[in-house]
Amino acid sequence: MNSDRVRHILSWYASDNPGTVTNLARLLGHGTLAGTGKLVILPVDQGFEHGPARSFAPNPAGYDPDYHFQLAIDSGCNAYAAPLGFLEAGAAKFAGRIPLILKLNNSDSLAKVEPCSALTGSVKDALRLGCSAIGYTIYPGSAARNTQYETLRELILEAKEHGLPTVVWAYPRGTGMAKEGEQAIDITAYAAQISCQLGAHIVKVKPPKDVVYQDEAKKVFEKFAIPTKTLTDRVRHVVQSCFAGKRIVIFSGGEAKDTPAVLAEVKEIAAGGGFGSIMGRNAFQRPRDEAMKLLGDVMATFKSAP
Amino acid sequence: MNSDRVRHILSWYASDNPGTVTNLARLLGHGTLAGTGKLVILPVDQGFEHGPARSFAPNPAGYDPDYHFQLAIDSGCNAYAAPLGFLEAGAAKFAGRIPLILKLNNSDSLAKVEPCSALTGSVKDALRLGCSAIGYTIYPGSAARNTQYETLRELILEAKEHGLPTVVWAYPRGTGMAKEGEQAIDITAYAAQISCQLGAHIVKVKPPKDVVYQDEAKKVFEKFAIPTKTLTDRVRHVVQSCFAGKRIVIFSGGEAKDTPAVLAEVKEIAAGGGFGSIMGRNAFQRPRDEAMKLLGDVMATFKSAP
Amino acid sequence: MNSDRVRHILSWYASDNPGTVTNLARLLGHGTLAGTGKLVILPVDQGFEHGPARSFAPNPAGYDPDYHFQLAIDSGCNAYAAPLGFLEAGAAKFAGRIPLILKLNNSDSLAKVEPCSALTGSVKDALRLGCSAIGYTIYPGSAARNTQYETLRELILEAKEHGLPTVVWAYPRGTGMAKEGEQAIDITAYAAQISCQLGAHIVKVKPPKDVVYQDEAKKVFEKFAIPTKTLTDRVRHVVQSCFAGKRIVIFSGGEAKDTPAVLAEVKEIAAGGGFGSIMGRNAFQRPRDEAMKLLGDVMATFKSAP
Amino acid sequence: MNSDRVRHILSWYASDNPGTVTNLARLLGHGTLAGTGKLVILPVDQGFEHGPARSFAPNPAGYDPDYHFQLAIDSGCNAYAAPLGFLEAGAAKFAGRIPLILKLNNSDSLAKVEPCSALTGSVKDALRLGCSAIGYTIYPGSAARNTQYETLRELILEAKEHGLPTVVWAYPRGTGMAKEGEQAIDITAYAAQISCQLGAHIVKVKPPKDVVYQDEAKKVFEKFAIPTKTLTDRVRHVVQSCFAGKRIVIFSGGEAKDTPAVLAEVKEIAAGGGFGSIMGRNAFQRPRDEAMKLLGDVMATFKSAP
Amino acid sequence: MNSDRVRHILSWYASDNPGTVTNLARLLGHGTLAGTGKLVILPVDQGFEHGPARSFAPNPAGYDPDYHFQLAIDSGCNAYAAPLGFLEAGAAKFAGRIPLILKLNNSDSLAKVEPCSALTGSVKDALRLGCSAIGYTIYPGSAARNTQYETLRELILEAKEHGLPTVVWAYPRGTGMAKEGEQAIDITAYAAQISCQLGAHIVKVKPPKDVVYQDEAKKVFEKFAIPTKTLTDRVRHVVQSCFAGKRIVIFSGGEAKDTPAVLAEVKEIAAGGGFGSIMGRNAFQRPRDEAMKLLGDVMATFKSAP
Repeated sequence: MNSDRVRHILSWYASDNPGTVTNLARLLGHGTLAGTGKLVILPVDQGFEHGPARSFAPNPAGYDPDYHFQLAIDSGCNAYAAPLGFLEAGAAKFAGRIPLILKLNNSDSLAKVEPCSALTGSVKDALRLGCSAIGYTIYPGSAARNTQYETLRELILEAKEHGLPTVVWAYPRGTGMAKEGEQAIDITAYAAQISCQLGAHIVKVKPPKDVVYQDEAKKVFEKFAIPTKTLTDRVRHVVQSCFAGKRIVIFSGGEAKDTPAVLAEVKEIAAGGGFGSIMGRNAFQRPRDEAMKLLGDVMATFKSAP
Repeated sequence: MNSDRVRHILSWYASDNPGTVTNLARLLGHGTLAGTGKLVILPVDQGFEHGPARSFAPNPAGYDPDYHFQLAIDSGCNAYAAPLGFLEAGAAKFAGRIPLILKLNNSDSLAKVEPCSALTGSVKDALRLGCSAIGYTIYPGSAARNTQYETLRELILEAKEHGLPTVVWAYPRGTGMAKEGEQAIDITAYAAQISCQLGAHIVKVKPPKDVVYQDEAKKVFEKFAIPTKTLTDRVRHVVQSCFAGKRIVIFSGGEAKDTPAVLAEVKEIAAGGGFGSIMGRNAFQRPRDEAMKLLGDVMATFKSAP
Repeated sequence: MNSDRVRHILSWYASDNPGTVTNLARLLGHGTLAGTGKLVILPVDQGFEHGPARSFAPNPAGYDPDYHFQLAIDSGCNAYAAPLGFLEAGAAKFAGRIPLILKLNNSDSLAKVEPCSALTGSVKDALRLGCSAIGYTIYPGSAARNTQYETLRELILEAKEHGLPTVVWAYPRGTGMAKEGEQAIDITAYAAQISCQLGAHIVKVKPPKDVVYQDEAKKVFEKFAIPTKTLTDRVRHVVQSCFAGKRIVIFSGGEAKDTPAVLAEVKEIAAGGGFGSIMGRNAFQRPRDEAMKLLGDVMATFKSAP
Repeated sequence: MNSDRVRHILSWYASDNPGTVTNLARLLGHGTLAGTGKLVILPVDQGFEHGPARSFAPNPAGYDPDYHFQLAIDSGCNAYAAPLGFLEAGAAKFAGRIPLILKLNNSDSLAKVEPCSALTGSVKDALRLGCSAIGYTIYPGSAARNTQYETLRELILEAKEHGLPTVVWAYPRGTGMAKEGEQAIDITAYAAQISCQLGAHIVKVKPPKDVVYQDEAKKVFEKFAIPTKTLTDRVRHVVQSCFAGKRIVIFSGGEAKDTPAVLAEVKEIAAGGGFGSIMGRNAFQRPRDEAMKLLGDVMATFKSAP
Repeated sequence: MNSDRVRHILSWYASDNPGTVTNLARLLGHGTLAGTGKLVILPVDQGFEHGPARSFAPNPAGYDPDYHFQLAIDSGCNAYAAPLGFLEAGAAKFAGRIPLILKLNNSDSLAKVEPCSALTGSVKDALRLGCSAIGYTIYPGSAARNTQYETLRELILEAKEHGLPTVVWAYPRGTGMAKEGEQAIDITAYAAQISCQLGAHIVKVKPPKDVVYQDEAKKVFEKFAIPTKTLTDRVRHVVQSCFAGKRIVIFSGGEAKDTPAVLAEVKEIAAGGGFGSIMGRNAFQRPRDEAMKLLGDVMATFKSAP
């Protein structure tokens, strides 16, 4: 479903080759939100990031990789994102049923050493499994950021050459940054800008909080009276920081919380011009019925946004 | 011998190319347990890991690489796994007699420096020696884990492209983990999950103990009442953590012990749904007759498991 | 417009292949200063280097990558330089309207860790986006200088083979150098010399100050009475240090300041034989009318220089 | 001279391609010991390892690279081993006169920093100079051991593919080991085992001393009463540790000493089943006549061994 | 001019391919000393190593890269050696007028951090600029020596394959060595030996002083009464350490000094069998007339040497 809105969005990516634009169109053309220019994505990387029991014991059906394919398809998500093993387990069985995003790096929580991602998949893997995009996480603010930027840059170029767009998970954190900076509005917007400058097609950040973290930024936010009070305000600033809205930016749900809280947040994201949500634990840790209902409500919220 | 059970197991690996599935079928189709979907493997890497006298003085016939080929063949093992030198010494002589697994990394105990594996073989070596799979050891929890994951990921992809499946030895250990965590049930299940997410076809872990190590995991094990009291319980949780049983997971015997202890352990592994055992020192350090008897009993145990 | 002056300048680069010389000619043949042998370039890398709000809040039109293409074109600049994301966003839309320079490395200010650039683009990117040159920043005096020199050397060779000249941003700084050395005349001239020796086609330095930093240099400046009192003097020494004027060297404007201060500085640069200016924040942070006026005045100053 | 004994030895290397076996046959088929399955090799790497005066002043004819080629040929050695420069200086002049072994790594004693070898030659060099084997030194027990094992592994594979066997110099030493461990019998046998496991065709160790160094090994040596009292005993254990004698292991002479001491040692090496000697300083630092006599006596000892 | 003497020298390099020998012949066949087997080379790398003012203010004509080409040609030098930028600036203009040597690594003195060279050119650059040889500097005795040796080894092999010989600048220095060791006779001879073993075609060292630095070497120099009193003696030992004179070794002039001192030193170098001089600052920092005279006198000294 290649609507006017989708055609308009694709025009921002005119420097890309037709293969890459085609896969971007696939993401925007699948599921309940097809053609709206909005996206809801199901990501399941917690098995690697937090371990199997912490991830799947609340809803043991989720130990089975097939479960998540089916949930993403049935709930009408635009795409399903996971690490290599989980995608490989179902890619043949569910071939062509939903666009897949291969998350190329992941970080476990087994070693209480410095947090750092390992490359756990490649562009070649994404291609042989029929994926529509690759995903990669950066930690702006960390000591390893430059290596991450450089790896990302190489992956983006390789992916592009093979017709795959890139989704960047931008999580500011690390030795160079205090806890309170991680979701500050200036830092979130800066991390989103960096992602766009590195060539991301879609950026994924956490919903920013009403904190301005860097002193140099504080002066500017005050001098030019940039509003940051409501989440809607802050989402608007992040969208503006993504090339005046010419790069797709979506927001994560974060830790599991109750349904009204999730929907309230989504309403503000949509009002601020956010392009969508990526919702993992809030979806797959609920019983399937509840997850279907919640994802449906989230999609309805984005659909009815201006 | 491509039984229904084997065909069912192979269906979990449908995203792999026929070459890789064929070699997986070879492992499942050889020896006493052919067609049962169970595996008993003879591994001999102690010459490199502990030195020649500590490994082979108890049964000096084992200094000779031919001995282990012959033992694995005669006892009806599914496969024989060893480092480059030991396989190369007999690969031509015993060509086609038993599936071989080339262990691609090994760690000596000469330097009392940090424990760390060196790459001691390659996919190219495995191919030129006629092997049916590669093996690789990771130490989740160690500072070097990410490098190991990345190397493994590259090896798995290279092996797959050449039609070889991968067996991952997952041994949690290292600077980020206390001794008691190494065989804890949460840690063992997590390490198995990571292996599966990285694309392992077969995972090998130690039999887990009745300890939950990480605080975040403890809460979950308690809240959802995950049983861990018997080895059977714990093996069941590990099997579940391997993609709800859709990845093959086998268990090692560990240090040499007496025969009843070995068989008791194996009985519980089989009852919990474990796919088999990998048994080194308990086999080759016994006189040949005893080793033949023990391996036969182990196989019988798996054969009669439900 | 391939004037006598331009042909003379190009003769200094006779060892380069025709493709590289052609792109150098494109930079010298575009905009208001076409054919004069002088250059004014618009660079916009602050979104990456300082963050979006600090860069674009003063003139919010600048959040949009299209804005800078249009400003560079309309004001008659010789070229527009930016990181990958900003160029990619407009390269297709503005194809062929102005020579582009892809800045291949950038440093963010999110981590308060050691300042260090990441590679954020490649020669391949420059080619697929239709750029006329690559740009690269070195920090002579830093502990990482040798890695930077080596990366630059490889990029220059790769770029040359594909017909692209290289602009080097030479910013002395780092652990091996006190703050006062960073813009000292001896250090600036030395950094410019290094850039030329590494094969730069165009060197970009900051306007040097009347300080001689290194003891060994002080003796020589005194013994041979090298004049450093006026900016004109100092620019002349830098030009001489660029192979007796046989390599193009241009000067940055630095932090935003008022119009008379900018123009006074430019007049001295032109008088000392400088080949031009590169002007970012002083241009795009002003309202568009003012920026157009200022850039026009700067170009007029260079045009009327002897 | 491809005797029964040589054919038997070559049968242990049946997994190797014919090119590699051919070169192994060349080493076993040249000089006084041709066809006996024994080897005496002249190695001259001291110019690099200890400097020219310390190496060659005792017999200044040795400054000239031609001298060593001629000595190895005239004395009837199986092969001549040296670093790149020394081999290159005579490879054309003496082409085809004696099998050459290119030592691929060397360590100078100029820097009193940590001892570590540099790669000073390549398989490509060995091929273009007409060599019959490559040589490589590892330091088991050192912090850099894993890098050395990995480099060796890659070199062995590359060499094999081009038909060249590998001689490994195994010298236990480094941060993880006290001085007394370096020539201990358990350590020497372990280092030899590692070399074989890594794929060495020929292993070279120092004659082991009557010391068992590691506690875990001590228990085993005592429990199984492994004899270590005479050098003959110890050589026998090392030979056994080299795949029950199915890999060639030779012994070095170490520091220069008097003739009876050299011959006494060689007699024990031969009695213990050692395959030969590698003798540098004891040969080329003597006047040519004496060196010829000594090498002749050593060869006679091996020839008359059972 | 391919005289008997040159043909004799070339015979020492018989293992090299004809392309490499041809370029060696070009160096020996150009300028005033053509056919004598002696060499005087003009090197100009001080712009990079010490900065422009310290290098060229004494004779400002030297800021211009053309100046040095012309001086080397007019004075009758065998070759001109410089870093990439300086050679590239004149390679097209002076094509075919004098053999060029591209110095592939250089070290600036901007950072007062550890001294270390960066690769500033490549074999590919040398080829595209029409050079007859590459040059590379090693610091034996430094912590980075092994990396330097390995890089050099790779460059020598790559250069050889393309028909280019290699000149090695061997400067002992670094953390592992006190100041007084840097020009000691044992150290200088050792550094020359290492260069030859690594495959250098021409070695360049500083004139050694009458100091024996290493204890192990002292014993040997005393025991075998190696004369070191005069520079002639010491040059003779260095020549002997270069494969008994079968590798070309030349000597640098070091810091600028007066003409009689330069010529006295050169006389001793020639008497000791040195193959020539490499003379930078003593040449290009003098007014052109004086430089022409001095270089002429130096060449005459070598011409009249036995």
